[in-house]
Amino acid sequence: MKGNSLKIAVIGGGSSYTPELIEGFIKNYNELPVKELYLVDIPEGEEKLNIVGSLAKRMLEEADVPIELHLTTDRKKAIKGADFVTTQIRVGMLDARARDEQIPLKYNRIGQETTGAGGFAKAIRTIPVILDICKEIEELAPDAFLLNFTNPAGIVTEAVLKHSNVKTIGLCNLPIGTQMQVASWFDVKPSDVSLEMVGINHLNWTTKVEVNGVNVTHDVLTRANNSGLHVKNIPDLGWEPQLLKSINALPCAYHRYYYMPEQMLKEQIEKSKTEGTRADVVKEVENDLFEKYKDPNLKVKPKELEKRGGAYYSEAAVQLICSIYNNKKDTQIVNVRNNGLIKQLPDDVSIEVNCVIDRNGAHPIQIETELSPHIRGLLQVVKAYEELTVTAAVKGDYGIALQALITHPLVADSDVAKKILDDILRENRHYLPQFV
Amino acid sequence: MKGNSLKIAVIGGGSSYTPELIEGFIKNYNELPVKELYLVDIPEGEEKLNIVGSLAKRMLEEADVPIELHLTTDRKKAIKGADFVTTQIRVGMLDARARDEQIPLKYNRIGQETTGAGGFAKAIRTIPVILDICKEIEELAPDAFLLNFTNPAGIVTEAVLKHSNVKTIGLCNLPIGTQMQVASWFDVKPSDVSLEMVGINHLNWTTKVEVNGVNVTHDVLTRANNSGLHVKNIPDLGWEPQLLKSINALPCAYHRYYYMPEQMLKEQIEKSKTEGTRADVVKEVENDLFEKYKDPNLKVKPKELEKRGGAYYSEAAVQLICSIYNNKKDTQIVNVRNNGLIKQLPDDVSIEVNCVIDRNGAHPIQIETELSPHIRGLLQVVKAYEELTVTAAVKGDYGIALQALITHPLVADSDVAKKILDDILRENRHYLPQFV
Amino acid sequence: MKGNSLKIAVIGGGSSYTPELIEGFIKNYNELPVKELYLVDIPEGEEKLNIVGSLAKRMLEEADVPIELHLTTDRKKAIKGADFVTTQIRVGMLDARARDEQIPLKYNRIGQETTGAGGFAKAIRTIPVILDICKEIEELAPDAFLLNFTNPAGIVTEAVLKHSNVKTIGLCNLPIGTQMQVASWFDVKPSDVSLEMVGINHLNWTTKVEVNGVNVTHDVLTRANNSGLHVKNIPDLGWEPQLLKSINALPCAYHRYYYMPEQMLKEQIEKSKTEGTRADVVKEVENDLFEKYKDPNLKVKPKELEKRGGAYYSEAAVQLICSIYNNKKDTQIVNVRNNGLIKQLPDDVSIEVNCVIDRNGAHPIQIETELSPHIRGLLQVVKAYEELTVTAAVKGDYGIALQALITHPLVADSDVAKKILDDILRENRHYLPQFV
Amino acid sequence: MKGNSLKIAVIGGGSSYTPELIEGFIKNYNELPVKELYLVDIPEGEEKLNIVGSLAKRMLEEADVPIELHLTTDRKKAIKGADFVTTQIRVGMLDARARDEQIPLKYNRIGQETTGAGGFAKAIRTIPVILDICKEIEELAPDAFLLNFTNPAGIVTEAVLKHSNVKTIGLCNLPIGTQMQVASWFDVKPSDVSLEMVGINHLNWTTKVEVNGVNVTHDVLTRANNSGLHVKNIPDLGWEPQLLKSINALPCAYHRYYYMPEQMLKEQIEKSKTEGTRADVVKEVENDLFEKYKDPNLKVKPKELEKRGGAYYSEAAVQLICSIYNNKKDTQIVNVRNNGLIKQLPDDVSIEVNCVIDRNGAHPIQIETELSPHIRGLLQVVKAYEELTVTAAVKGDYGIALQALITHPLVADSDVAKKILDDILRENRHYLPQFV
Repeated sequence: MKGNSLKIAVIGGGSSYTPELIEGFIKNYNELPVKELYLVDIPEGEEKLNIVGSLAKRMLEEADVPIELHLTTDRKKAIKGADFVTTQIRVGMLDARARDEQIPLKYNRIGQETTGAGGFAKAIRTIPVILDICKEIEELAPDAFLLNFTNPAGIVTEAVLKHSNVKTIGLCNLPIGTQMQVASWFDVKPSDVSLEMVGINHLNWTTKVEVNGVNVTHDVLTRANNSGLHVKNIPDLGWEPQLLKSINALPCAYHRYYYMPEQMLKEQIEKSKTEGTRADVVKEVENDLFEKYKDPNLKVKPKELEKRGGAYYSEAAVQLICSIYNNKKDTQIVNVRNNGLIKQLPDDVSIEVNCVIDRNGAHPIQIETELSPHIRGLLQVVKAYEELTVTAAVKGDYGIALQALITHPLVADSDVAKKILDDILRENRHYLPQFV
Repeated sequence: MKGNSLKIAVIGGGSSYTPELIEGFIKNYNELPVKELYLVDIPEGEEKLNIVGSLAKRMLEEADVPIELHLTTDRKKAIKGADFVTTQIRVGMLDARARDEQIPLKYNRIGQETTGAGGFAKAIRTIPVILDICKEIEELAPDAFLLNFTNPAGIVTEAVLKHSNVKTIGLCNLPIGTQMQVASWFDVKPSDVSLEMVGINHLNWTTKVEVNGVNVTHDVLTRANNSGLHVKNIPDLGWEPQLLKSINALPCAYHRYYYMPEQMLKEQIEKSKTEGTRADVVKEVENDLFEKYKDPNLKVKPKELEKRGGAYYSEAAVQLICSIYNNKKDTQIVNVRNNGLIKQLPDDVSIEVNCVIDRNGAHPIQIETELSPHIRGLLQVVKAYEELTVTAAVKGDYGIALQALITHPLVADSDVAKKILDDILRENRHYLPQFV
Repeated sequence: MKGNSLKIAVIGGGSSYTPELIEGFIKNYNELPVKELYLVDIPEGEEKLNIVGSLAKRMLEEADVPIELHLTTDRKKAIKGADFVTTQIRVGMLDARARDEQIPLKYNRIGQETTGAGGFAKAIRTIPVILDICKEIEELAPDAFLLNFTNPAGIVTEAVLKHSNVKTIGLCNLPIGTQMQVASWFDVKPSDVSLEMVGINHLNWTTKVEVNGVNVTHDVLTRANNSGLHVKNIPDLGWEPQLLKSINALPCAYHRYYYMPEQMLKEQIEKSKTEGTRADVVKEVENDLFEKYKDPNLKVKPKELEKRGGAYYSEAAVQLICSIYNNKKDTQIVNVRNNGLIKQLPDDVSIEVNCVIDRNGAHPIQIETELSPHIRGLLQVVKAYEELTVTAAVKGDYGIALQALITHPLVADSDVAKKILDDILRENRHYLPQFV
Repeated sequence: MKGNSLKIAVIGGGSSYTPELIEGFIKNYNELPVKELYLVDIPEGEEKLNIVGSLAKRMLEEADVPIELHLTTDRKKAIKGADFVTTQIRVGMLDARARDEQIPLKYNRIGQETTGAGGFAKAIRTIPVILDICKEIEELAPDAFLLNFTNPAGIVTEAVLKHSNVKTIGLCNLPIGTQMQVASWFDVKPSDVSLEMVGINHLNWTTKVEVNGVNVTHDVLTRANNSGLHVKNIPDLGWEPQLLKSINALPCAYHRYYYMPEQMLKEQIEKSKTEGTRADVVKEVENDLFEKYKDPNLKVKPKELEKRGGAYYSEAAVQLICSIYNNKKDTQIVNVRNNGLIKQLPDDVSIEVNCVIDRNGAHPIQIETELSPHIRGLLQVVKAYEELTVTAAVKGDYGIALQALITHPLVADSDVAKKILDDILRENRHYLPQFV
């Protein structure tokens, strides 16, 4: 990892998010002097790769930053000798996402991209591809860090931790998003805000909020009752105030699926009848975005990208790479192997917690807050689902897959689980060779 | 605990189950020479106490067994100097049970005596009464064993373990019932059957079945697909065979509420419209029984008692007392403090596992089978609910109560939880001074 | 394991202890109808095997017990299809033991067969041989139980648990000896005495003593101050009474090396000058015994055998085999995999604790007594030594061997450790191919 | 903790070390604008307090730093409203230290201020005084941090963690000393060096050394064989190279007592005959220092202070206070409650590990290196000694004190332990009211 040869490979480089990342590399070039940047995608995505790649080139030129940009469909070439590999892939593309959202709805179950049965389907499609990428990294760039943004990020990261030797960190924009929102509430800089987050990806609780070292958790909880921290793709329904007060920790946006599944399901069903599922909405947004990207006069990240939902991904990603590259020893909230940090979860699972970031990676910091039985219990059962999902994805085991879905609180019925599983396996059969 | 002065106090002695217990003491008099047997009940239950007490006297006389029988409403007198205290109480009697079953059904949730929101209501009514009894035992019979049969037996036992110094063991008839059923399938004596059960009361898995030392787990699982092990008050819906094979352990009857909640709920709703809830059915059975009991010519346990649902309670109870009294060191499946036996649960909770029984009580035996993520996850989330329930019951804390219900997989929604909780607190207000 | 074909292989069958074992099989024939009994030894031991084997034959004939006795140096033949394999071997024979005792003494360290540097030397000589036997059992008798009496029994058992798939239980006569002694003190039958023992082989504490269910621990501790529980080969120096009272548990005989090393060392040095080391004494005893064994008129176990030191071995061994064979579910104190029972030790080490014995083996019972820091700390450091010893023995790693010796409280100095290790490796080089 | 009112109380302010601390506050005034600095001492130390206090005043004036300096023997006045309280006390002064060093030598045991029986004596004298201070802090400055430098720092810190509610961090100069030495070896700034240290105070291992993010552990180990990292008061004997290579971690200076006790003891005995014990040497150094301090022309820390042995204490202390005060979130190696970080030690003990320091205190970072059995075993047994020592000191329990000494690897004999304990209790009786 030497300054004059820093190489980064972005797998799924044809993604509509890529301009975010390019902007991040431009802004941080002084600290992070990238020499070679590879955007790589699959042949089916080559057209998009070229569109977004051309925009990226214009952005780099406009900013006068000497990063060598490479567009390729040769993944091995991109990975070879890389210092960092990032993944932001969508196996089966938005059509698969649409199915992930629709199948559970048929059986009155939440249909969501990363949570519940939809997340399960995405996981078992994605894990084999990620593990293939890992084999290439092991061979071609054994010292590289794999930074995984691919959802369900916690499960995918766990699969890598369990089934490869690649150094990996999983990353989500929820922590940084929470930090940003608290900063805006208190009218301070994001760096003045410290959070203690405990849990797993898309199911973590903020157990302490400090602004310049002063504990403001109570204020944040009071505020959250009304306006709520939310993300683009999840309706903001507020929280039951007596629940929040008693839990004494801030749930994340995805908790709404666990805490108010009936309302959330009702809303999903209604929306699916009017505007379609979230995948349908995203498809349109993406089409618009790529039309924008084609404009040869566009030389910066277009504002419209923010609608897309992945706010702050670039901040999170570049911040993490910077801290590793510069051995910064600052604190970030990322997904790592548990190894006893959350004592109530197995050692070998992924968790999302505060870590010190240095050149060796992410080092979890001991959690101060004792987990209440509620937080612990919900974490444990969802993590059990995730462990079963990783095993099912790797082994292609029908029974384990069935156990995974029954264990998930948003499925939780053997008849329903079996029907959903059979639909998922049938509709995704091209992407699931391990289940044949 | 000397042979010539063995004293047993049965709290809730006016229960319709009492003749079972009397029969047990008669059959085992040689091994267990009870000198004094106190049947004690509350003033409101005095009539029933007298009816069942008279039958008990006739039974003892008929069998020519010199146990001194005492009927009383003075609980302290019964407890004083007792060697064993058993509890089989129903705070609020069958009317309260009827409400426990009806309230959840209003919100499309399972309405059941020991599981889900119904069990929660029963627990918070019962725990304060049991802890009062414990205070009396601490004072009047500090060396006595409290054998708790009162449902929800696991939660009530946990409350005693956490909030009193009384030596206690929780007891259920499911383990012995399973042993009996396996014995009948293989046409052997119950004592030829060994089970390894792992879990908590009304949520345990049989992970190994041996007949005369030969592992027959596979056979039992195959059989269970079709006919199923079942108890009187739970419909026998069979199990999803691929699930059972994959889990490789036999669920207990109450798992049906967790594994097939939609069907179970549907059936409960239908039944409640035709024959009423289980409480309504039991009321009739009990009325019939007490009519029978009044017959001065009845001098043995009437056959109709078996319909009542608590088969083998007497076997389980007397077997446990015998083994303690005689320092037998045999193996029984009972509810005790975890203390690390199930590593994935907290130390201070109650679990239901194989124990060596001797004069000092029940000593858990290490579990051989590694718990799969599915079993572990479900156990953990339901145990978290139980822990919250104990705390809510002892402290009368609304927020913790809300957390308990949201954590339970059969409620799992904050709006629904709040509505159910408010109904429970309102309808049981006379029994819940701690929540005022 | 069928009654009409029960086969037992005794490896090291030419041992002077064998008549003990034969007597045990004779006494328990009704419960344990052995069909074939193989005594097997190495070619160098063939003469002794024939002497002791002939006596064994005479004993069986005299008792009119139809066990088929086979004497052989073909180990595979003995193992093939066996139900139980027992080992009582001494790699390097008594000459090696003499060296094990002498080398540490040169450096002012305890020289003892199973404890300290002497035990280390014996362990690294023995483990490779035992693992060879295990390979043969895996191949020729995969369902057999290996009952290991070979010292240091805890370390050897741990090596088998970690490095083979053979079902194994380690066995020592200390627990049964303690039980016998308590029985004699209280003038009751041994079966009236229950002990809770906690620890590892040759370093365990009796934390509770019950006679017919009554706790007599305090009495036993008071008595132990003066007379002490002891074994043949360890001087009985009594215990510091204030220490014993404070620890509130009875040390085992081998604790004397840990609690009063200066006195013990002094005595060893003196004795080595007068009567030689224990090995020298044993050699003479053995010579006398074998002379006795040769007498064709001797048809029972000679009384003199009791001087030899291994009292109750036969009781312990036959009792264990009986309980497995008959699926007895009684409690015995044996060496098994920890697996979390002693929470303060790693899962994969051997411990010596109370177990339920059934056809599947030994199932540890939860320990009631919380371990004090003293007991815990001493156990942990000695177990760390044992773990290092197993690794050193298997890998032949000089550095790990050095760590093992430095870690042992009875060596505890890097200069001394290095000198002792170099002496051991040089003097035992024929038995330590793994270190070349 | 507001900038305009920062108050620090230094208990034991009359120590010869104080000029170090004053220099630290002067150098860091910009970051750490101390308003009030209280040096407090006992009446017997008033003369020294005045000498060192006058020097401190001259130093502050010379540096033109507006810190208000207060000298007092009224401890409560000093503590009231303080933000930080530091302790550097010596109960019984150097005469007691001399006895701590001499008593063990009488019985051929290491006589050392913080390790072994000497450290035990110091601990039981010091703990009651520190807990008295804690009571005053709880009452008069409940938000203050207690930074404990008083030896044995790990044991004293553990006593505070277990027996008071005061926020405390224990601090030693060994970690910063190691960092300094590595920096000088590699000719880099100390801030370029990162260490992973694992263990407890005065018994920790450096498991990883990085210079600017590059792992140089192997180099450091090779170098350490010859020259060795050492501190003033411990002879530098080097390490057994094969041991160091196998352990693959750098021992601390105090390990010499554990790894080469025979040589160390020999040297102590020789020195005690020629130059006296370390206490005798220190007495002379101190006398010389205080003579120097009296010189009204001395306005800076005198060079001779470095001979005293506590190099870098001021750096360590001021660095810690700065990071807390400025919410820095940097990494420092300090003594905190374990709480599961070192899984093989109890939760409630003190450990010395890498922590993130912020306004809330010290937050341990997960340890990357798996502890080998050797490190684990030695840590566990010495920690067990420390736990027993804390209990003995608080309860004044003779039996526990005896257990503590027997458990310590440098005593390890019940006769010797009893003799040493009796000597300690007799010679320190004025300081040990809890044992009367």
